[in-house]
Amino acid sequence: MSPLTSFKLSELADILEVELDGNPDTEIFGLSSLDLASERDISFISRESFIPQLQSTNAAAIICSKALSDHFKGSKLISDDPYLLYAKCSSLFKSKPLQNPGISKLASVDSSASVADSAVISNFVSVSKNSIIEDDVILMPGVFIGNDTVVKKGTIIHSNASIYESIEIGEGCIIHSGVVIGSDGLGFAKESNQWVKIEHLGKVLIGNNVELGSNTTIDRGSVGDTVLGDNIKIDNLVHIAHNVYIGSGSAIAANSAIAGSTKIGKNCTLAGCTALVDNIQIADEVHITAKSLITKSIKESGIYSSGTPFMKNSDWKKNAVGFKKLHKLSKL
Amino acid sequence: MSPLTSFKLSELADILEVELDGNPDTEIFGLSSLDLASERDISFISRESFIPQLQSTNAAAIICSKALSDHFKGSKLISDDPYLLYAKCSSLFKSKPLQNPGISKLASVDSSASVADSAVISNFVSVSKNSIIEDDVILMPGVFIGNDTVVKKGTIIHSNASIYESIEIGEGCIIHSGVVIGSDGLGFAKESNQWVKIEHLGKVLIGNNVELGSNTTIDRGSVGDTVLGDNIKIDNLVHIAHNVYIGSGSAIAANSAIAGSTKIGKNCTLAGCTALVDNIQIADEVHITAKSLITKSIKESGIYSSGTPFMKNSDWKKNAVGFKKLHKLSKL
Amino acid sequence: MSPLTSFKLSELADILEVELDGNPDTEIFGLSSLDLASERDISFISRESFIPQLQSTNAAAIICSKALSDHFKGSKLISDDPYLLYAKCSSLFKSKPLQNPGISKLASVDSSASVADSAVISNFVSVSKNSIIEDDVILMPGVFIGNDTVVKKGTIIHSNASIYESIEIGEGCIIHSGVVIGSDGLGFAKESNQWVKIEHLGKVLIGNNVELGSNTTIDRGSVGDTVLGDNIKIDNLVHIAHNVYIGSGSAIAANSAIAGSTKIGKNCTLAGCTALVDNIQIADEVHITAKSLITKSIKESGIYSSGTPFMKNSDWKKNAVGFKKLHKLSKL
Repeated sequence: MSPLTSFKLSELADILEVELDGNPDTEIFGLSSLDLASERDISFISRESFIPQLQSTNAAAIICSKALSDHFKGSKLISDDPYLLYAKCSSLFKSKPLQNPGISKLASVDSSASVADSAVISNFVSVSKNSIIEDDVILMPGVFIGNDTVVKKGTIIHSNASIYESIEIGEGCIIHSGVVIGSDGLGFAKESNQWVKIEHLGKVLIGNNVELGSNTTIDRGSVGDTVLGDNIKIDNLVHIAHNVYIGSGSAIAANSAIAGSTKIGKNCTLAGCTALVDNIQIADEVHITAKSLITKSIKESGIYSSGTPFMKNSDWKKNAVGFKKLHKLSKL
Repeated sequence: MSPLTSFKLSELADILEVELDGNPDTEIFGLSSLDLASERDISFISRESFIPQLQSTNAAAIICSKALSDHFKGSKLISDDPYLLYAKCSSLFKSKPLQNPGISKLASVDSSASVADSAVISNFVSVSKNSIIEDDVILMPGVFIGNDTVVKKGTIIHSNASIYESIEIGEGCIIHSGVVIGSDGLGFAKESNQWVKIEHLGKVLIGNNVELGSNTTIDRGSVGDTVLGDNIKIDNLVHIAHNVYIGSGSAIAANSAIAGSTKIGKNCTLAGCTALVDNIQIADEVHITAKSLITKSIKESGIYSSGTPFMKNSDWKKNAVGFKKLHKLSKL
Repeated sequence: MSPLTSFKLSELADILEVELDGNPDTEIFGLSSLDLASERDISFISRESFIPQLQSTNAAAIICSKALSDHFKGSKLISDDPYLLYAKCSSLFKSKPLQNPGISKLASVDSSASVADSAVISNFVSVSKNSIIEDDVILMPGVFIGNDTVVKKGTIIHSNASIYESIEIGEGCIIHSGVVIGSDGLGFAKESNQWVKIEHLGKVLIGNNVELGSNTTIDRGSVGDTVLGDNIKIDNLVHIAHNVYIGSGSAIAANSAIAGSTKIGKNCTLAGCTALVDNIQIADEVHITAKSLITKSIKESGIYSSGTPFMKNSDWKKNAVGFKKLHKLSKL
């Protein structure tokens, strides 16, 4: 993680297309938080609560809004949206090690599969029958690609991820380690107290610019497909069941679970540990707070919650007893 | 996923042993949902809420109950339990690619291990000392099998699953990708503020016809074993702690967690994101709704719940304040 | 799991430095629970609720406190802290198969990496550029180690774990199968309804004697690092987001999630399925009960809870209706 490159502040202002207030020749070697930055780093402030740190930071320069710029005496890049500018700046300082294109001698690629010359197929990767690996795809060590699966241009799949058969992954996706795509959903009928398996005949279709966090799992459709639109961001350890549909631009934080056949609209955000039951529809622009359980369709955009506040366990016990008496409240 | 086979409707009725109402010669190439089915597919209806789709579906035929059969003018397979019939029908349309038996040259099998001639040992699989891989077992790429482990007849273990030492997996099981069986439980004693590890001396014993969803984890017993009976179905990302016992026929949905030494009876169902604390007993035929926390033993069959309803965040905030005052309800 | 060693009771007392009351020559071949122990095993009692089992157990000897010693007629090892003694005793009966040091011919180690002679590099392991694998480290099959990563003395990493670039793992750690360390956090800014990725420039730094349960995931820092102190014990399927800090001696049970930049003090315990939102601080010695959601900083040591009790679903429904009317309680 030692970036070999540095930028003059004037170069950063040019690349990021923002106003520079300060010394254009200051050399910047890295990006860090206000408290950790050295005099070789640029830092940023996106919340007012960090204003006090502007006095003590060693940063050579900061990214800030016009409104906050008076609080810092040194050099500044000024932006209406400093958090966005920080995001753009971060990509300049990320070192991405060169990977040599080609198929490792320790990989296994079926003769019927198609692998672009520019793709990287690392050690211990399996690419199965009739699969297609497009240009600039990187498959890190231990990745499994099943039969008839397509991985489109520029997508990276990190180590030990498992992609079953008949999956379609769009362009520019980032699939983190341990992700599983295409396993069977929990689908069974009962016959004389025995479970009878519902075979999963559907696929998983994933759009472009989707990021999936580590160890997240996405089941294939039973009949019909599981579908994720474009530009969707999913965190670690999230469960997406069979036949779920997720609209473009939505984001789901860690340890959440979406049950079968539920549909999520566009530009929704689900905070961590949320759960949606099966067969419901969530409108566009719905935002769900952490650890909520959604049991019915939501037709109106807005913020939704369930659960109770936290408190000292001794207080909680008394209120929990009260919860058991709530049915009496109907008389209030 | 392109099934090469097709069935005449009369053949389907014969195989599935149900009544046919319609054209016996209609050729069926696939199984799909009412909204997605083409005129080459059979579809099914198992809930009344889908009745309106019976008008618009393109399906060549449907699976339905006698009661609903009047709503559809085309050919029908009629069953008392259309959902079960759909499950049975799904297996006819699932294409299972032929795998050649034998040990890949890119696999590693210890010389003391026993592998049946009919088993499939794929690339990058490790089979360790004294392990036994029975007839028709399929180990997909990247699977790890520890020492002294037995995988019984006809079980498939998907890519990158990890099975530690001294594990027993029954016949006809389906273990999805990324599953871990046999890791140590979270067992520690404290000595002068340091954790002292409890070594896990027990095994994991898994019955027949068990399915484990992707990235689910099952810890080995500390003393004594972790035991799953027959015909148990577990979804993705479920945690089964050390020394848990699960009775036959039970099912657990995604992201649930069962703490150490807890015993679950037969034919229980746990919805998604449920949690059971340690050292409790759950009777047979107990059903737990999504996201519930069970803190005490349940002796009586039935449905159990915890949590609060969800609502708009602005309403929730007001009610959450009320929760803090619930101890006053004792006066009601 | 068949230990080849046995101990005379007098030897156990010597090694464990405790008082022996009984026959010093009794041969002990294993350690088991009271109900499962044979007459060749030692067992233990650490809770009064197990006293009745002292009558029926077949154990050759037990570990118990002075106070409970009268309830058992056979041989005893007597300790003020029988649970701790049991933990120490368990390590004597754990068979750890010898692994031959060296690099498997089926592994891939970059020429720039440094691997100690005493380390075990198993089949299908990748060790990438400039990484350092210290003495007595064991990397089980399928482990991936990225560039510039250090794994210190005596640490074991189980099969199919994925360690990204620039990670530091301390001495004597146990990393279970499927763990992912160093994936990117869920960090994005929005620009005209598109997510702009925040590149993660930080590392993950893990102290000594840390244990991570299977399929747990730890994201790297965005700016600054994600840091785990010494002697931390984390269960299965836990999510640790970018820039989280966890103080030494803390333990986190399964399926919990800690959001970005949150700081947890020393010697805290989080029960299963807890969640902490982002950017909060938790004091030392805080204990959180199962399935709680913590939404604000906790400044005072103690026990904290949220949620409701569980009950029969028919009762729960009535109380849940009451929860919706709680805002009226402000009048109480």
